[in-house]
Amino acid sequence: MMRRVAVKIAYLGDEFAGSQIQPDMRTVEGEVLSSLMTIGGNEDDNLKCASRTDKGVNALGNVIVFSTNFNDDAVLLKALNSVSRGVFYRSAATVGDDFNPRYANERIYRYILPAAGIDIRQAEQCAALFEGEHDFIRFCKPDDRETRMNMRSVKLSKMNDIIVMEFRSEHFLWNLIRRIVSAIAAVGRGYASLDDVRRALNGEPISFGIARPDALTLIDIVYENVEFVVPSAEMFDARIEEELFRWSLRKTFFDSL
Amino acid sequence: MMRRVAVKIAYLGDEFAGSQIQPDMRTVEGEVLSSLMTIGGNEDDNLKCASRTDKGVNALGNVIVFSTNFNDDAVLLKALNSVSRGVFYRSAATVGDDFNPRYANERIYRYILPAAGIDIRQAEQCAALFEGEHDFIRFCKPDDRETRMNMRSVKLSKMNDIIVMEFRSEHFLWNLIRRIVSAIAAVGRGYASLDDVRRALNGEPISFGIARPDALTLIDIVYENVEFVVPSAEMFDARIEEELFRWSLRKTFFDSL
Repeated sequence: MMRRVAVKIAYLGDEFAGSQIQPDMRTVEGEVLSSLMTIGGNEDDNLKCASRTDKGVNALGNVIVFSTNFNDDAVLLKALNSVSRGVFYRSAATVGDDFNPRYANERIYRYILPAAGIDIRQAEQCAALFEGEHDFIRFCKPDDRETRMNMRSVKLSKMNDIIVMEFRSEHFLWNLIRRIVSAIAAVGRGYASLDDVRRALNGEPISFGIARPDALTLIDIVYENVEFVVPSAEMFDARIEEELFRWSLRKTFFDSL
Repeated sequence: MMRRVAVKIAYLGDEFAGSQIQPDMRTVEGEVLSSLMTIGGNEDDNLKCASRTDKGVNALGNVIVFSTNFNDDAVLLKALNSVSRGVFYRSAATVGDDFNPRYANERIYRYILPAAGIDIRQAEQCAALFEGEHDFIRFCKPDDRETRMNMRSVKLSKMNDIIVMEFRSEHFLWNLIRRIVSAIAAVGRGYASLDDVRRALNGEPISFGIARPDALTLIDIVYENVEFVVPSAEMFDARIEEELFRWSLRKTFFDSL
């Protein structure tokens, strides 16, 4: 019997030309669709994706929804992971026919910035300016959406030589986080002042540029009353082990150079 | 005035289809030749390479020799590094016209093996069997060369979750280290005995397979009376910093998966 299932997926942004399907491009949605076909699905399965991510942006918890004949989530995820090239299917939940993944309670993003040259106190003060309700028109690439919105929290923490920033909100605007990060970095480096940021938040046409996409990750999307179940904690262990080993080989090379 | 110059180069093996030039393939020699042309050299510069490395095998200190009009090594390396795609030109020395980089006093290779599941004492005992003079016919892919040779040293050290093996010899045979590593790993895992290895070293047709190439690095080649000079210790700092940051992003992704 067909049912709607929501699945949390992870991917590295630099392996795809963005999440949204495009002809002749390797995209996350294109890859998911191809995997769904391979395991017996079809184009009527009405695949929907919760958040669009730009080229280069990573996800650990984007959400897709589709119709399926599989009645066991563990079997479904195993089948998808076995044919997938670059998308990791992490957990699943059965949802109602009217479930729209775009309406979420909270989205959580993480940005990683090298700490070198950044005054963490200045950066923290700058981050705080973005919390709460603002018109973010100077911090996004305009599309049809309302630019006034509520940013629930922007948290910074320094870990060794990186600064980890965590953003929480019901929804985000196009390029919003990368533009905010660029402003926080500029203030932290002394290239811009807190007052410059305040003025931009008041609508003055000031641009602080845009930070690189590959340091941004969509960590999670939270829905009330939808509980995603991880079928097996060891699902990706072999792959993770191989990747971390390859990473240590490459690190050793550059450490020795 | 033309002179012969020897240059130590580094590269990641997975960016090239091996070191030796081949038509329509991206090889280390092909890339070097193309960079030499770009900075004003020509095909008569008689490029020679000290050690062939297979597809996937890395180098931190392979050696190339060629004729050049540049009289300042620092300027030469800077020019080469600025046009290079994937080859790092690290240090240089002026050499005589008859200098043949193939005749070296010592070559040093490093192999990195994940330590999980390997009995380090068994592995060390196995490594010791390969030291000294042996006929390595069961541990190489035959070419025209004499398979009896002297292996100066095979050293193992465990560092956290990897085993680092260092091999020193005047020269090596084709696939020799990867086949020896595969034997050491088999003994360390209990899949083969020290006696199996002894018998293979005595000529019995036993194969222990071949270890993956990307964990092997040609660390250095030593020549008597040739002193390579590093023009600037910071030459690759920006690139190293960027690579280590990119890899920390990737590591964070897989650590979180």
